[in-house]
Amino acid sequence: MLGKELILGLDPGLCRTGWGVLQPQSCSAAGLRCVEFGVIAPPQAWPLEKRLVFLHQELTAVCTRYSCTVAVVEKTFVNSNAQSALSLGFARAIAMMTSALHGAKMVEYSPTTIKKSLTGHGHASKAQMITMINLLLGTCVSLSDSADALAAAWCYGMTLKGAG
Amino acid sequence: MLGKELILGLDPGLCRTGWGVLQPQSCSAAGLRCVEFGVIAPPQAWPLEKRLVFLHQELTAVCTRYSCTVAVVEKTFVNSNAQSALSLGFARAIAMMTSALHGAKMVEYSPTTIKKSLTGHGHASKAQMITMINLLLGTCVSLSDSADALAAAWCYGMTLKGAG
Repeated sequence: MLGKELILGLDPGLCRTGWGVLQPQSCSAAGLRCVEFGVIAPPQAWPLEKRLVFLHQELTAVCTRYSCTVAVVEKTFVNSNAQSALSLGFARAIAMMTSALHGAKMVEYSPTTIKKSLTGHGHASKAQMITMINLLLGTCVSLSDSADALAAAWCYGMTLKGAG
Repeated sequence: MLGKELILGLDPGLCRTGWGVLQPQSCSAAGLRCVEFGVIAPPQAWPLEKRLVFLHQELTAVCTRYSCTVAVVEKTFVNSNAQSALSLGFARAIAMMTSALHGAKMVEYSPTTIKKSLTGHGHASKAQMITMINLLLGTCVSLSDSADALAAAWCYGMTLKGAG
């Protein structure tokens, strides 16, 4: 039995944060319906704190509109570049905090788990992920930010289906 | 001529975020008065997103209470540990975003600049920083988190005095 909870998928980044909302729906073949998706891209010329405020405010609008019960993100694997890791932490913190502030439970999956859930194997390319998202959800996603966000939400959605 | 603006000093950390509010005051010897200071320490057993929400909410309370026009933080120098840098980014993002959301202008100084402004040289120890903060502001700070936050605010305050 599928729940009625809305699932928010997030792909946080300082330049671009992808997001997508899925709704479990037993009457569709996939068992999940895409409600809306988008990309939050603060002007890059803005100072860091203003970009973080922009991200928080735009995500607040999404959270307010949909009252998602779950927020799903890819697990972060930091490489040896500490400066990149710091920047990655900035957007991720705002995305997690804003979702949790609006009552969403946080769920994390490894990139491999998400890819496998969507394509059947854990090493799918970005293009393949976009193709599968559009095929399964009937969307016209062209950017990997949105596709990655929807893919994370999809991965969680499949666990609901499995439990049904 | 000293302005009337309140200065918020911040020392962001996931375990402990120090904060302190200073007010320019021409009648005091130091030219700055300590209004309040504290440490925000979310329970460490909590999941990350809940700790970030706690930090955001506690800082929101401070920002609402004092309407600071400036928020001052130490510049971050990330070392080779990418995982530490990621965690450092989490708290820093929330601190910067929350202050900016409440209208504070963001100012950053290097640790050396802050130490020099307070003790006269750039390599002061933590104990020396605490001693100088208490001496100059008449406070009883015992924790370096609060002392570092007040020191950052002090550093900005001195630039106002210099411009007077």
